[in-house]
Order: sequence, then structure tokens, then C-alpha cells
Amino acid sequence: VSGLIIMRILLINGNTSQHITERVASEARRVAGPGIDFRAVHADFGARLILTRADNAIAAHAVLTALAKHHSGCDAAVLAVSTDAGLAAARQLSPIPVVGMTEASLLTACMVGGAFGVLVFDRRSAPVFRELVLQHGLDARMTCLHAIEMTPTDFIEPDRVREKVLRAITDVANTGADSVVITGAATAGMAHALQAEAPLPLLDGISCGVFQARLLADMKLPKPKIGSYSSLATHDVVDLDPDLMRLLRAQ
Amino acid sequence: VSGLIIMRILLINGNTSQHITERVASEARRVAGPGIDFRAVHADFGARLILTRADNAIAAHAVLTALAKHHSGCDAAVLAVSTDAGLAAARQLSPIPVVGMTEASLLTACMVGGAFGVLVFDRRSAPVFRELVLQHGLDARMTCLHAIEMTPTDFIEPDRVREKVLRAITDVANTGADSVVITGAATAGMAHALQAEAPLPLLDGISCGVFQARLLADMKLPKPKIGSYSSLATHDVVDLDPDLMRLLRAQ
Amino acid sequence: VSGLIIMRILLINGNTSQHITERVASEARRVAGPGIDFRAVHADFGARLILTRADNAIAAHAVLTALAKHHSGCDAAVLAVSTDAGLAAARQLSPIPVVGMTEASLLTACMVGGAFGVLVFDRRSAPVFRELVLQHGLDARMTCLHAIEMTPTDFIEPDRVREKVLRAITDVANTGADSVVITGAATAGMAHALQAEAPLPLLDGISCGVFQARLLADMKLPKPKIGSYSSLATHDVVDLDPDLMRLLRAQ
Amino acid sequence: VSGLIIMRILLINGNTSQHITERVASEARRVAGPGIDFRAVHADFGARLILTRADNAIAAHAVLTALAKHHSGCDAAVLAVSTDAGLAAARQLSPIPVVGMTEASLLTACMVGGAFGVLVFDRRSAPVFRELVLQHGLDARMTCLHAIEMTPTDFIEPDRVREKVLRAITDVANTGADSVVITGAATAGMAHALQAEAPLPLLDGISCGVFQARLLADMKLPKPKIGSYSSLATHDVVDLDPDLMRLLRAQ
Amino acid sequence: VSGLIIMRILLINGNTSQHITERVASEARRVAGPGIDFRAVHADFGARLILTRADNAIAAHAVLTALAKHHSGCDAAVLAVSTDAGLAAARQLSPIPVVGMTEASLLTACMVGGAFGVLVFDRRSAPVFRELVLQHGLDARMTCLHAIEMTPTDFIEPDRVREKVLRAITDVANTGADSVVITGAATAGMAHALQAEAPLPLLDGISCGVFQARLLADMKLPKPKIGSYSSLATHDVVDLDPDLMRLLRAQ
Amino acid sequence: VSGLIIMRILLINGNTSQHITERVASEARRVAGPGIDFRAVHADFGARLILTRADNAIAAHAVLTALAKHHSGCDAAVLAVSTDAGLAAARQLSPIPVVGMTEASLLTACMVGGAFGVLVFDRRSAPVFRELVLQHGLDARMTCLHAIEMTPTDFIEPDRVREKVLRAITDVANTGADSVVITGAATAGMAHALQAEAPLPLLDGISCGVFQARLLADMKLPKPKIGSYSSLATHDVVDLDPDLMRLLRAQ
Repeated sequence: VSGLIIMRILLINGNTSQHITERVASEARRVAGPGIDFRAVHADFGARLILTRADNAIAAHAVLTALAKHHSGCDAAVLAVSTDAGLAAARQLSPIPVVGMTEASLLTACMVGGAFGVLVFDRRSAPVFRELVLQHGLDARMTCLHAIEMTPTDFIEPDRVREKVLRAITDVANTGADSVVITGAATAGMAHALQAEAPLPLLDGISCGVFQARLLADMKLPKPKIGSYSSLATHDVVDLDPDLMRLLRAQ
Repeated sequence: VSGLIIMRILLINGNTSQHITERVASEARRVAGPGIDFRAVHADFGARLILTRADNAIAAHAVLTALAKHHSGCDAAVLAVSTDAGLAAARQLSPIPVVGMTEASLLTACMVGGAFGVLVFDRRSAPVFRELVLQHGLDARMTCLHAIEMTPTDFIEPDRVREKVLRAITDVANTGADSVVITGAATAGMAHALQAEAPLPLLDGISCGVFQARLLADMKLPKPKIGSYSSLATHDVVDLDPDLMRLLRAQ
Repeated sequence: VSGLIIMRILLINGNTSQHITERVASEARRVAGPGIDFRAVHADFGARLILTRADNAIAAHAVLTALAKHHSGCDAAVLAVSTDAGLAAARQLSPIPVVGMTEASLLTACMVGGAFGVLVFDRRSAPVFRELVLQHGLDARMTCLHAIEMTPTDFIEPDRVREKVLRAITDVANTGADSVVITGAATAGMAHALQAEAPLPLLDGISCGVFQARLLADMKLPKPKIGSYSSLATHDVVDLDPDLMRLLRAQ
Repeated sequence: VSGLIIMRILLINGNTSQHITERVASEARRVAGPGIDFRAVHADFGARLILTRADNAIAAHAVLTALAKHHSGCDAAVLAVSTDAGLAAARQLSPIPVVGMTEASLLTACMVGGAFGVLVFDRRSAPVFRELVLQHGLDARMTCLHAIEMTPTDFIEPDRVREKVLRAITDVANTGADSVVITGAATAGMAHALQAEAPLPLLDGISCGVFQARLLADMKLPKPKIGSYSSLATHDVVDLDPDLMRLLRAQ
Repeated sequence: VSGLIIMRILLINGNTSQHITERVASEARRVAGPGIDFRAVHADFGARLILTRADNAIAAHAVLTALAKHHSGCDAAVLAVSTDAGLAAARQLSPIPVVGMTEASLLTACMVGGAFGVLVFDRRSAPVFRELVLQHGLDARMTCLHAIEMTPTDFIEPDRVREKVLRAITDVANTGADSVVITGAATAGMAHALQAEAPLPLLDGISCGVFQARLLADMKLPKPKIGSYSSLATHDVVDLDPDLMRLLRAQ
Repeated sequence: VSGLIIMRILLINGNTSQHITERVASEARRVAGPGIDFRAVHADFGARLILTRADNAIAAHAVLTALAKHHSGCDAAVLAVSTDAGLAAARQLSPIPVVGMTEASLLTACMVGGAFGVLVFDRRSAPVFRELVLQHGLDARMTCLHAIEMTPTDFIEPDRVREKVLRAITDVANTGADSVVITGAATAGMAHALQAEAPLPLLDGISCGVFQARLLADMKLPKPKIGSYSSLATHDVVDLDPDLMRLLRAQ
């Protein structure tokens, strides 16, 4: 836990878009301070901006490939994709701890105490997030999942939606929440920008992901030797990225 | 529902192994009778035999690719991968109904009545199946998930494990189950082979998948026009199989 | 599954009213095509139109009696009573597969994928349907149970409520549902009439019941030999319908 | 609550057997003291000893008929049938409070504090009791449902199974239970006979039913005027017992 | 159960305010009739009017202390604090049965039948009551938890809020509830005052607490000899009230 | 997150025993490294070693008092009491973040991934821990709660039970767990001592508590301004510790 330890965290953007990678890395650096170095990469294939269930399934494979290519020399990895696509698979495959940005924000909200509300920025994806909270086993802690619509321009110029998002945060607060999870990789930094005006703690997936990744790296827990998250070599694989094949076979 | 309608069902094996494709297709043909034609394909990339969480995540992408390449001219698709890898994504992407083999067997068990037990053939994958039943929202109907270990040889010569599996079925029955789901693509046909000696109805994923796919094809329900399973074009995609890119963009 | 097999399905209307029997039989024939023959009967005693918890309890007995009298020569039975009254009892007692209309529509909605909403046509009965979904263990798949009021005339001239029902379907869709279950025996056919204008697949209990009954008849699964759904003779019974007494004792 | 108030409780045995009625009435009188008078009746039709799901469905109708015939002049009713068959229907129909024997014992166990275990005397009926606890919404309070087999002779000469039942109670206690619900109308009085040797409070359905029925009668709460338990006349009924028809129409 | 038995019930007000003690005792005497004598006491330390989570934690200790000081000669105790603060601890420690006022009203609502709604009079405490219902394992029976705000004056002159509370009761009824739990020690008697105008049975914690305490006292069940509610002496304690220390050590 | 920031964490032992305080502080210092300073205190009143529900209720008050006396100048607090006694109250009352040792270990286990098992060292307290996991809303993540008995000597000379605890860990692993939470303040350090021989990551409450407290202190999230965890002055309090009264009134 001491300050002199230098740590490197791998940030994997599951979207194939450089500007989201940059936004994510920028927020990570802001919260981390000088003690942590980041390697920020993005998926090699798939959607520029993940929207659908199909996009997410493809991103899971892309995230594994990026992990295989870039994890060497890193102490932990954060998946910067709002649906935590590929998280369980990456965690099983990876020699280093892996954290999903939304999972990290949900668990940090639990650590803050009481119940959380979740804010999503696309009505269509609300059921996907609801399933995600359920898969993380945290639905008993959620008071509501609140969806508002944002335009592509809104993401680029977040000041346009400042009032709208603050109103949504108030709506979430009225459901009995004690904190609000702001979802999305493209919205990294929004929680920080709005916190001063919000009645509840706002949790940003990238910020929480970085802090929880540091925690896991510092705790130096061993990987499970048994069970569905332990290493198991899959020797006989066909036509994958060479680094991914190597990692699959090396387990 | 009449007998004269000829239907074609696409069987997608998520493993990259021809012999599982053949076993699956053989069981499908046995139960379907003359009215249904099958197109049986397998994943182009990934594990020969899916074992781990990472293998499953890769298979989800492979299943989508196979669907994009082969669905044309088919009335419904059955995913022959025991974890239903890629099911939600395929269902959202696909113009035809898509059925997962394990989901189909769980829902058919519900239709039979009462509670079901689930038999899995690999201790390590038990938690993955438990999560699957939970994701399908059917855990309230499950009395137990019972795991036994089989060797690769056991799968090829199932007579070697006949007694062992029947004992496991009896153990499941003693938990209060009213039917038993026999999981696995590689075990297709085992339920049929053991039914006469079992105290409860045995449900085979391929058999149930074929019948439920026929049901959906016959019902001719429209695709949802809204929500997370509706079509939505993802125009801006990078470096995917051309057929998959075409289907993603065509939505 | 072949088209040449002729099958006979018993439709048991739990209400003692001939006109609901006719409406149900008409919808069943419409969806089934020439391969399936129907025997449509109704309860001999109880409410003309089941409304209350007491009516339902009486209907359960009436359904068992009708099953005992009319199942001979049939391949499966569908209970045409919206609360699935008597379903578990009938399934345990019956030598042929028994399907409840609402259970069938809920499970078919699961097979379609994602989550379902449920539309009921009597505010007072909403809690009964909520309990029913819970008893079927499917509440995790339900986004909402939406009740609207219909007058007796509305049931006879459904065009009067077309707009009202379509608005309700839109309300259900906004809860994140991926399909809508239209409950009720008296509303058989309404889903078909409204489907073209609805944003989501609409599931009719009779239609789903017929398809799921065909599926179970085709699968030829044995009855459980043990457990609470297996046959067990109750020799010592007092003052029941002779056919019902015979079936109870014959187990 | 004062001692001078004389109260009459109707005991309805859902089995058509006089000797169970007598055993139930005897236990009721033992616990009630001089302030309460009992009218003990049994079902006019159905199984002598309820065993199966079908028997229970028939008993529900029989219980309603007995209630209609005999409730007049009583302050509350206790259903002496271990599955609480017909309880919700009777409660909706009845002008006086109705208590189910198993429901009463489960709620009294909650009042005692902590978690309860449930002891059933027929392996085959265990799932039915599990469903019952779930329908009463009390599964979170149950540590186990433990089934032991008893022969008909065992019920008549309970001393034969004294040791066996005490061992089962100890097994239940080891699951973390704080009390044990002894199910069954035919076992009325067994809890009292074994209490001195048991490590936990034992709850008898008849005893709990009498005390809870007295509580409801004393509280003089009104019937709901709205909702699925309120009165609603079903005018148009066919071929039922005249008293039951009168009560159905009178609502 | 006979009327000649005189019983004494200890009422422990967890607030340190005499006027709430008096209101509680007055409602208890109104419902109990001449057969029951009450000893009404209040906490010696802590908040005059419990508002926050911290106030409740302190009240739990105060309730134990009051129990230790005053239980001698009583047949049962009712905790008159709306959050049931200290209930599990008091029940474990106490030689006589202990009932919490809100737990008693929730379980009585279950006994009445169907589902209940809960009315709380302070928006801020709504999550605390939600947790309480969950801890009692009764959330499956709750249709809603409805919060309205009352001023201190409103509590003293309840006629000012008569219309507001009746409107809230109607709102609760519209969620499908079959009864309404009126929470709060300071609102004791409100249910009685409003019942005639309400569409559903109203349950008052003090009234229910008294009736359930009488029921437990009459049943004379033994304390558990094992488990987390059994007696266990804690000999080595530091700096507590002498009566509490004596009771802790005496177990 | 940088290494130069010096942080002070308050450790509050809920037991009134100096040697547990020392053991806890020793484990905290071991994991924290030079960047964190600790202030370790214990409860002023209550049980030397908390055993029962009553002991825990008293400890909650003692924890609040210790927090009020000692939080000044600290950046976060860890409650070193295995049942997290007083956690919600302390979190609401405290101006600095408060972490419970067991809550911290459960949430860290979630962060590690998959499901956890929980190991407790006193059969009698198993239900209390089960309730705790449920109150934290994390029961869906738990595969089992496994209790073994330890003698007071075992706690002092943990080498005596090394084999026994490792066997229990293996039992937990066989339930499908991916990590094991080792409960108890008196067992602080045991996880570290056994990790090398265990097949799964072992989570120690003190170690996890320190890391999660550091995370919350670093994140500098504001306290909620509304809801049941926000500050609210309770002005009118009677006969409490002066520091606690000051903090209650200062809110």
C-alpha cells in the first residue's frame, strides 16, 4: 500500500474507437495520481461504439484478444466497456486481476453503503444493464435503473445535458438510493463534473475500476487453483489471434 | 402445423469439431421425422471442445459468424453449444427464430411440469450452468445441479458410463425433481438411450431444441420492433467476417 | 414431427359456458391446421364465467372431472382457463400430457426470448395472475403485469377496445418487455387480431397451448414414475363423478 | 380479549374421514380451554385421506362446500387439511375469518422468532409443501423441509415412531432452525406429546390454527372492500351444492 | 385461552419520551380488555423520538436494559419501537416471549390473507422499513411501502392529517394490497380511528403486538435449547447496567 | 492514490478486550505498509468476546461511542467486529467513511470474481452470519456458509487447528466457491498464514477492511445529502456519552 510502489494498469476499451480510449485514459490518470502508470488500448475488431447485444458478444472476444496481446508487464486490467463484456472470460484467462468498469462501480457503491441507483444513457440498453446487475448478484442493492436518451453530440459536449442528467440524478435519489452509478465508458468523467451539484455520491466506472484494480493488485491474492475461474489449457483451438491462442494453451 | 409444410432448421455447433456436429445432426434427424430438413454447421474458429469461460466467450462470436453465413433459407436455428453461448446476441441479430439447446431443454422441462434437475458432465463447469439457469430466470424450477465427471473416452463409448449416469439420475430424482435435463452437445442422444431405465422424463437439449425451433417457426411471430432484442444497424464495424458485417449493418 | 401423423387434442374450458368453448376451439383450429383434431368440452359445474378465487377453486375440480370423462383417445389436453385452475392436479392425474393456457404462453414468451409483460383484463384478478406467474417460477422474466378493465360487451365486440388494448400493449413495451402475454380464454384470438399493429410479439394462451401440447405429444416422454406428479391410486374416495373416481383409483 | 367472551370456531377437515375430524377436534379442545366452543365437520366428498395433487384439488371444493353449510353462527374457521387446500378461495368467500392449519403454524413459527424447519410425513408430498411455503411467501424463513415416511399404523400408534420423529427433529435443528413445524392433520397432538424431549419449540397446525383464529376473531377487522379477497357475487353458477350456490351469489 | 387467566404484558417504548409510552399503553389497554394487565416503561437513554439509524442502534441497547430491569413478573413483552430495534437480541436474551410491534403487524397482515402494503410517516425512514420487511423475510408479501410526511404537530393532532392518510391508504390499496400496515409507535390508535372509512383492514403495531404477545404467552412454548436464539451466558462483560449484566450472565 | 499521502485509519474493536485490538492492529499494519497510520481502540462497555445476539446489540452502541470519541483526525474507520455490529448506524453518523470487516471481505470476494464461501468458527453464530450476508444483499454470490467449532485455546494457538481449517476450506471449495471469506476479528491473520496451502484466495476481514477503507478515503466521495444515510441532528437525547451526544446533535 505504500506510495513508492509503481504499478501499471492495462485499460482495455472494448469499442474500436480511439477517442473513447483517450477519454477513459484521461479520467484514469486524473484519479490515479503519479503512482500508477496506464497502458490504454482498444479492441482490434468489432463496433466503433458498442450498441447492441451482438456488438457486445463480439466485443467479449475482442477484449480477450487485447488482453492476450497487452497484459504482459501490467499488474491489473480494467475493462472499459459499460456492459462488462468478456469480464468472466478475461478473469478466468488472465494471469493478472481483471476488473470490469460497471462491476467495479456497483461494488464501490455497495462499499459506500446502502442502496444504489443506476443511470444509463440509452433506453434500449436498459434491459442489458438490468441483466448485468442481476448477473453480478447485486439486484437487491439497486433501487432503480433509470434510462435517459443522449444524442452522439451530447456525449461530445456534455454541458448540453448537464441539467437533464442532474434531474435524472434527483429522480434516482427519490427512489431511496444512497449513491448513483453513472454507466458508460463514453461518459467517463461526467460523475466528477457533476458531483458538486448532486445530492448523492456519484460513481464513475473508470474511476472505480482504477481504484478497485489497484486494490486487487496490492492484495496479491493468488488465482484460484480449482473451479470455473482457474486456469485450464485449451490446447486444441482453431484460427484465433496468435497471442490469444498462446494464452489459451498456456493455462 | 400441418404435415405438408417442409421446414429447414439450421444447427450451429459452437465447437469447431466435425464429429460433434454429426452427433448433433444425427439426434436432430432421429426426432424430427421426414418433415424437417437440417443444415448442420460448426464454428470456424475457437476451441475444438469448449471447456472454459474463455472458450465460451470466443464461441459466442463464432456462433454469430456462422449464423450470418448460413441462416439464409432456414426457418429457425438451434445453437448446439451447451452453455447457450451467444444466444441473446444471435436472437437479437437474427432474422429467424433462434433457440439455445439448454434453454430449450429447461423450458421443455417446465412444460412437462413441476421441477427439474440438471445433470452436467464436468464438475468445473457446474457454476457456469448454475449461472445459465439463473440468467434464464429458471432457478426457482431447479431442484439441483448435479455434476459427474466423464472422460473423453466416455463420451465416445457412452455404454461405459451407463450405470454411472443412471445412478446420477436417481440422485437427481431424490431431490424432488420431476424431470432431468441432460446437458451437453457431445451427449446428444444419451437421454434417448437411457429413458427406458430412468424413473423420470429425460430431456435432451438437441431434441428439445428441434421441437421448440419448429414451434417458433410454425408460430410465425414477428420480431420485436423495439427493445434490446429488436434490430438495430451497427454501421461502423471493424475487421469482422464479411457476412457478419453485412448482417450487422443490415439490421 | 412428420405431417402425416394425425393428433387429437382435448380442450377443456373451465368455465361452464358454451360460447367460450366455441371461441377457444375456433382459435385452436385456426392455428393448428389440418393435422390436428380437437375435442372441445367445458366444465359441468361452477361459474359460467370464472371471476373469483372461489370460482377458480371449484373450476379445478370441474376440470379434473372433464378430463376424466373425455381424455380417452386424445394425445394431449389444453386447459382453457386463464388461471390454469387445476393444472398441477390434472397433470398428476392424467395419462396424457396436460398444458395450461397461461403457463404455455409464459413459457413460449420465454422461448421467444428476453422478458415478457402480462396483460390482464380485470383489475381485481391482477394479484391472482401475479401469484400464478410466481407459482410457475417465472417472475424473474416478467417486466410488468398490466391490468385494464373490460366490460362484458367489450369481450363480445372486441373492436370497441382495439385502441385501448393497443395503448396498453405500448405501456407494457415501455417497461422493457420483449413480448406480451394476452391472458384470458374469452379473449382467444385477440392477439392474432392485433399483432400487425403491435410493436412486440403477442402471445395468446390458446394458440401457445395448442403448439406446446403438440410438442409434448410428439416428444412422447414417459410420465414420472416417482414424485408428486407420478400416478398414485387413491382408492378410498367418497361421492365423486364415476369417471373421476375410476381415474383416481386406476392410478 | 376478555375471558367472558364465548367464541365458536368452525373446524373443517378436508379429508372425508370421521376419525381425523375427531383427532383434530380433540387437540383443538385441549389447547383452547373453556372459552371456545368448536363445531367440527369434514368434507362430504373426496378422499378419505388426501394423498395426491388431485385429491387436494377436489378437497378445495369440498372445503368451500363445508364452509358454506356450516359457518353460520361461528366466529372464525380453521381448515384442517395439511396443504391448506382451498384456503385463499375460502378466505375470499367467507364472511368470517379463515385460517389454514399449515399457514397458521408457519406464521406462528415466525412470531416465535428466527427460522423454522418443516417436518412432513410423506416423501412424495414434500414438493407440495415446498410450494406451499413459497406461496405463503415464507421460504426465506425456512431452513429445511425434512421428510420422513410413516405407515398408516404409525399414525394410529404414534408411540411406534417417537424415536424416529425425535431424530428427525434433531436433524432439522442442525440446519439452523429455531423452531419446527410438525405438519399434518392426522398428526395433531404429536407436537404436544414430543415437546418435552425436543430441543426446539414444536408447532402443531391445529393448535396454531386455533390460537390464530381466536386472534382474528378478537381483532374484528373488516373484510377488504376491494381486491381479490373482497366479496363479489358470482350469480351465474351451475350445478353446485345449494348452500355453496347461495353463498357465491350472496357476496 | 380461558377468560379467567390474568396475564401481564410488558410494553417497552424504545424512545425516551413519556408521552409516547402513554399513547402506546392507552391503545394497548383499549384493545386488550380486562383480562390483561400492562406494565409500560420507556428507554432510560437515547433519543426522545427515534429518527436516525444511529438513534435506532442506541435504542436497541436501551430496550435490552429496560427488558432486564422490568420483565420480572410479566408473561410477554412488546417492543414499542417502530423499527423493532433490538428485537432479535431481546428475544434471545429474554426468559419471556418478546414481540416487535412492526413484526407483529406484518405477520398479522399475513394471517389476514393476501398481500399487505406498508405506510410510513417519514420519507427518510422508508429504506429502513424496507430493510426491516426484508429482514423479517416478508418482502414477497408486500405490494408497496408508501411514505408520507407528517409534522410533529400532525402526530399530536391526527385529525389534521385524516384526509391525507386516507388518500395514502387508497394509494396503497391500488397496488393490489389486501391490508395496510400503519407503522409507528407515535401513531398508535390511528388505524382504529380511520378503519371505518378505509377500504382495507388497517393493522396497528401496538394492537397486533398485544394480540400476538397474548398468543405466545398462552401457547407456553419452551425457549430453544440450541441455536442463535437459545440462552448462553456472557460472563465477562464490562460496564453495563447491573440488571442487564445479571441477565446476560444468568443465561 | 500517490504514495506520499499519509492516511490515518481508525480501527474500532467492538469487543472490550485489548488482545483482540492488538491482533487486529498487527494484521492491519502488516498489510498496509508505511503509508498508513492506525489508531486502534476498543469498545468501552459490553462483552470481552462478543458471542450472542444480545452482545452484538450492545456492541453496536459501544462502536458508535468509540467512533464519536476517536474519529477526529482520521480519514476512515474500520469496524473490527465480525458481525459488522453498528455498521449502518456508524456510517450514517460518521463524518468519515466507515467500513465493516465482514462487509469488506464479502465485497472484495465479489471483486475477485465468481462466488464465495464463508467460513465461521462457531456453529451457533452461523445463522447470524447468514442474516448478515442477506442484509448486505450478497446471498446470490455465496455458495455456502460453513461452520467449524474452535476452542478459546485454538484462537490463541492457531497452529493447533491448521489442518482442520484447511479441510474446511477444501469443503467450501467443493461447493463451487471461487474464494473463501475467513470471518472473525480474533482470527485476523489466519488467512495470510494458510494462503500458501489453500486452493482458493482467502479473504481476511481486517486486511480487506483496510484496503477498502483506503479506497474510500482516496475517492473522497461526499456524504449523501439526503436519504437514510445522510446527516440529521438528533437534538433531544438523554443520558449518553458526551462525545456521542455531541456527534448526534452536530449532524
